[in-house]
Amino acid sequence: SKPGPIFLCVGVESTVYVHNPHLDGMKKDNLYHFNLGTSTHDLPAMFGDVKFVCVGGSPSRMKSFIEYIAGELGLENAKSEYPNICAGSDRFAMYKIGPVLSVSHGMGIPSIAIMLHELIKLLHHAHCTDVTIIRIGTSGGLGLEPGTVVVTKQPVDATFLPWFKQIILGKTVVRSTDLDEGLAEELLQYSNELGQFNTVIGNTMCTLDFYEGQARLDGAFCSYTEKDKQEYLTKAYESGVRNIEMESSVFAAMCKLSGLKAAVVCVTLLDRQKGDQLNSEILQTYEQRPQILVSHLIKKRLQASGYYKS
Amino acid sequence: SKPGPIFLCVGVESTVYVHNPHLDGMKKDNLYHFNLGTSTHDLPAMFGDVKFVCVGGSPSRMKSFIEYIAGELGLENAKSEYPNICAGSDRFAMYKIGPVLSVSHGMGIPSIAIMLHELIKLLHHAHCTDVTIIRIGTSGGLGLEPGTVVVTKQPVDATFLPWFKQIILGKTVVRSTDLDEGLAEELLQYSNELGQFNTVIGNTMCTLDFYEGQARLDGAFCSYTEKDKQEYLTKAYESGVRNIEMESSVFAAMCKLSGLKAAVVCVTLLDRQKGDQLNSEILQTYEQRPQILVSHLIKKRLQASGYYKS
Repeated sequence: SKPGPIFLCVGVESTVYVHNPHLDGMKKDNLYHFNLGTSTHDLPAMFGDVKFVCVGGSPSRMKSFIEYIAGELGLENAKSEYPNICAGSDRFAMYKIGPVLSVSHGMGIPSIAIMLHELIKLLHHAHCTDVTIIRIGTSGGLGLEPGTVVVTKQPVDATFLPWFKQIILGKTVVRSTDLDEGLAEELLQYSNELGQFNTVIGNTMCTLDFYEGQARLDGAFCSYTEKDKQEYLTKAYESGVRNIEMESSVFAAMCKLSGLKAAVVCVTLLDRQKGDQLNSEILQTYEQRPQILVSHLIKKRLQASGYYKS
Repeated sequence: SKPGPIFLCVGVESTVYVHNPHLDGMKKDNLYHFNLGTSTHDLPAMFGDVKFVCVGGSPSRMKSFIEYIAGELGLENAKSEYPNICAGSDRFAMYKIGPVLSVSHGMGIPSIAIMLHELIKLLHHAHCTDVTIIRIGTSGGLGLEPGTVVVTKQPVDATFLPWFKQIILGKTVVRSTDLDEGLAEELLQYSNELGQFNTVIGNTMCTLDFYEGQARLDGAFCSYTEKDKQEYLTKAYESGVRNIEMESSVFAAMCKLSGLKAAVVCVTLLDRQKGDQLNSEILQTYEQRPQILVSHLIKKRLQASGYYKS
């Protein structure tokens, strides 16, 4: 039998907010980088039931995630095929199963910002309510055993300050990077419940560059010493930073502006105080950890709502 | 018969420079986002003959480009199959035919910077010499008929200044965005010779955001008026900006530092003073134009070197 509607909140439903008076005057809205649009697709029919959006850099990882959560929720389809909803564009990949949407965002702040502008408009056009959004990613760790999962308390910039600076019409605008504290605590609790890997809550440094911007010694250019690197990473650690990645600040800022409850869950692939280079083999087991934790949260939430029976 | 070596320069060959004393002390170098490495691949054998590198955002466009230039140069292989050299990673795609390498870079400064760090190290490890690199992309135009190709004179930031600012160890470092003037002039001349579309030389504004960062009125958030937008774009035009994209500044800065002769060739998909939304159908014919122009340059250069006989 088809599952009934989900009611996750008691009281008034929370909608996804766009803040753009110009949108009302547009006859159609083409979500260009998704290859979707209001005049070409029935967005409420396609996406109206979405309650959880999971985003991550790599398209193949986001496909793995939808396959994994479909299994966890007992929602596998007969052929176990999950078509890319954004077929026709190779900018992002998108998959859906029941109330869960999985979207890739590429690497770096500009790439995820393009995706989030179009995702927030998509959720708005589809009249979605009570949406929780979680970034599941990879990162470099500070003072943590590789494989540790970090749930972000607050994203900070390369000077360890908790803001996102954006340039609009040539002027700098400062935005808050607050995430949902309750959601972070809930994720930590579920990790303890699972007992499969270590999870900590800490600040996440979000940079515009992977090599020089993260004090790596192995880029094409490097004008500092190992000692300079260690001093910088120690200062980051002392300020509360536990991992480093490239998308969390704009993700937090845009989700907060649009009223989406948001969390960032990244596994650490290495301890940056001990090295810089990544090893593809280790990655494959570690990168499943954020997926396992977030799937568990989604399952628990859906059980509580009566959508899903274990 | 196998083509002989190419000598494009008279005199001393120009090598690709890394500026990183730490690299010499590394036993191996894992080019993580390419899924290539010095201990797992024979990089000189695989890439030592590369003379032209073409880069662009979309993986499928960079595959189309290698198919197109293989045909133009008469170097099609029997099955017309061009495997992705970076198979095993879905971060970037890479294709090669003869002396031409085609690499995708995703969207935005951080994404292309990751690719360029690893590409510059790849060319260095492969002992490549006399390499020309060209970004072939799409952009929004200013005061130009859509479909016009812009060869970048100089990338500028969102305040129209010709520099790239990067944060290293928490401090701002300013880098020059000079491109190769002779290469830009050569491209303009070849476009006139081809006579298939209009090409101009102008400054390119490189932004960190596609919506608010480029004064669009159709993002999820917009706190300015149509008049504010037009004033900003008019100022950009008056400063010499002819198109807007998201990668040229760091591309110019990193290529200059590494001694690569570089150009940026982007087609304009729309006139930003007349609109914001993109239409996928128009795109497909326009996006071939940078490919046609750059293929023509490569063909001419190879003819001049005796590598290729028309």
